Amino acid sequence: MDTPAHPHGDPFARLDEQAEVRRAAGLVRTLRPRPADSPLLDLASNDYLGLTRHPEIVEGAAAAARTWGAGATGSRLVTGTTELHAELERELAEFCGFEAALVLSSGYAANLAAVTALAPHGTLIVSDAGNHASLIDGCRLARGTTAVAAHNDPEAVRKALGTHDGPALAVTDSVFSVDGDRAPLAELASVCRESGAGLLLDDAHGLGVLGDAGQGAAYAAGLAGAPDVVATVTLSKSLGSQGGAVLGPARVIDHLVNTARTFIFDTGLAPAAAGGALAALRLLRREPARAARAREVATALHTGLTNAGLETVRPDAAVVSVRAPSPDEAVAWAADCRAAGLVVGCFRPPSVPDGISRLRLTARADLTDAQIADAVRTIVRTAP
Amino acid sequence: MDTPAHPHGDPFARLDEQAEVRRAAGLVRTLRPRPADSPLLDLASNDYLGLTRHPEIVEGAAAAARTWGAGATGSRLVTGTTELHAELERELAEFCGFEAALVLSSGYAANLAAVTALAPHGTLIVSDAGNHASLIDGCRLARGTTAVAAHNDPEAVRKALGTHDGPALAVTDSVFSVDGDRAPLAELASVCRESGAGLLLDDAHGLGVLGDAGQGAAYAAGLAGAPDVVATVTLSKSLGSQGGAVLGPARVIDHLVNTARTFIFDTGLAPAAAGGALAALRLLRREPARAARAREVATALHTGLTNAGLETVRPDAAVVSVRAPSPDEAVAWAADCRAAGLVVGCFRPPSVPDGISRLRLTARADLTDAQIADAVRTIVRTAP
Ligand SMILES: Cc1ncc(COP(=O)(O)O)c(C=O)c1O
Ligand SMILES: Cc1ncc(COP(=O)(O)O)c(C=O)c1O
Repeated sequence: MDTPAHPHGDPFARLDEQAEVRRAAGLVRTLRPRPADSPLLDLASNDYLGLTRHPEIVEGAAAAARTWGAGATGSRLVTGTTELHAELERELAEFCGFEAALVLSSGYAANLAAVTALAPHGTLIVSDAGNHASLIDGCRLARGTTAVAAHNDPEAVRKALGTHDGPALAVTDSVFSVDGDRAPLAELASVCRESGAGLLLDDAHGLGVLGDAGQGAAYAAGLAGAPDVVATVTLSKSLGSQGGAVLGPARVIDHLVNTARTFIFDTGLAPAAAGGALAALRLLRREPARAARAREVATALHTGLTNAGLETVRPDAAVVSVRAPSPDEAVAWAADCRAAGLVVGCFRPPSVPDGISRLRLTARADLTDAQIADAVRTIVRTAP
Repeated sequence: MDTPAHPHGDPFARLDEQAEVRRAAGLVRTLRPRPADSPLLDLASNDYLGLTRHPEIVEGAAAAARTWGAGATGSRLVTGTTELHAELERELAEFCGFEAALVLSSGYAANLAAVTALAPHGTLIVSDAGNHASLIDGCRLARGTTAVAAHNDPEAVRKALGTHDGPALAVTDSVFSVDGDRAPLAELASVCRESGAGLLLDDAHGLGVLGDAGQGAAYAAGLAGAPDVVATVTLSKSLGSQGGAVLGPARVIDHLVNTARTFIFDTGLAPAAAGGALAALRLLRREPARAARAREVATALHTGLTNAGLETVRPDAAVVSVRAPSPDEAVAWAADCRAAGLVVGCFRPPSVPDGISRLRLTARADLTDAQIADAVRTIVRTAP
């Protein structure tokens, strides 16, 4: 009695239908491998300080691979913690003004770890409507209950916290990745303090850009090192490398070491990534003006585009968001920019929850004034 | 009217109580940073082929950082896909016998991506009771419904699948990380085919070890490249680096590119990690006997320990699990081994769902027979 291979059909055949729907809607995403040396001007990466190809950072990565090996060889609690990881954690915590830090393999993993470990069963999580996917997934994985609060609305957070008696955690991006707007951190912290809630902020786009020397949004808001504030950062944007970290009171970090699944059951960050990030951090401490320059470049882009009549969000950090009339026009606009030698990000549904398509430009501290002027000219000329 | 800082107390003070409970139960986990050159013999890492410090792999990582930069600079769909990523995906898919591959920043992220993307609302996920934390978290994040099946029990999977009419996905480790036992993949595939379910297997501990040349468990079971089989792997164990990948039919990979959140919203894998893994893969293709040697070392460890009367699980791959009478004795045993110059893993609750404490040894292809004999002697001599 032979059993046919698929009496009920191919289990993945239905994926073709979904692909067809994407095609019909013009929403197909394809990977576009880039060469090592591109003649294009990049305003799409998150390399805000222009460090990812800086010789010191590259050498930091290469030297770490040579000294420690290409991989961490195990989870952080088994064989995956090297003295390099400990050094990075110490210097990162100190630079950002926190008591302790814990490095994970990505900012995504850091957010999953922080939310799940700080919001067990019985906890109310109040999550900003504009939060990054990794925070949202953290809320979904956590055993606590999530209430979504209107974007950047401390009053909404206060109301949500008021509905709950037990432990609570407010969760927000410090700088929102799509529009680059900043969260009202001081107000949020005071709302949290009124009800004894913790505040978790994701500083992926603040580290290296905000604070006089790039110490990040928590530091800039006077919240770094507070007993009720936890921040996550990524090593993959301003620090030009890969990885993420949670920053907070030592008791919180200790709690994560003992309970956070994406920390405990994940291989430690590769030494090269740790070494690259550490070199970037040290460079930034030596040359703190890089942070201010990233903000200055963002402002210059905004001014140029606004003066030309384009609807551009005033940048709070290094992300500059330009509104496009429709998804199709956004795609065509970005393609025209690329044809003219300029790479820009293009965000459209379903990546953007509000359904508004936009070009997303990122300022880089190493852009020259001539490059900025050039970029503005190209974007204005190709506008729909 | 001044608001006191914490009318309801410090939000993280309750963490101290939990720390106290851990202390009382002897379950405190602490990080132990290791030096670059340790005189200890390592039987705890997952560096099964001994490649993480191999000059070719280290140089692959260092060269990639120099050519491509220390970081990928953005998510894979924006600026984070280099030609190096594409090359790694091509060669990994080819080596393992699958149509296509997608590289993510970790094996953890690969599992979250695969499960969530393949098990949308309406899907029944049948998940082995011994699955890795990352698969479990994938099940929790997915919109589908999860049924947990008894460990390594195809009949239980068949029954669970029989309760459901819509799309279904069976999910299993190929080699279980704690005991090193292998899943009955051929039986599972045939059970899945009877009801048209997909099969997702996590080959984190199979790649580089199983199959004549280390092509992995799916290949060894004749399932690689099947239209209804998807595998995940990590680049952080046998390949000595960091990162993860999903392997499967091109339509599945295309679906992940378009829908998997831990792929879309995560920075691309650092070039050094991709370069290290690619160098390891090429070395393994040139020297396929490394895979067999890893298995041979595992068998030698098992034989030595069993002959000495220790309760040791017969290894199906490169993980050798030795039973300990209690959590405390397991910890003391591992500590005694370390004092004698041997690093072994120690798994105890709550990391092990079955509550059984054990030493976890990992075979490495580069261990000499003398080192194996030495390790066995130490473990036997320190046994409780
Ligand atoms: C706000 C925010 N948080 C977290 C992440 C995730 O960080 P990583 O890419 O290092 O995983 C990103 C982007 O990737 C982000 O934009
Ligand atoms: C079975 C299994 N799957 C997935 C993972 C996660 O892979 P990674 O460490 O690369 O994130 C691990 C271990 O870390 C594992 O043991």
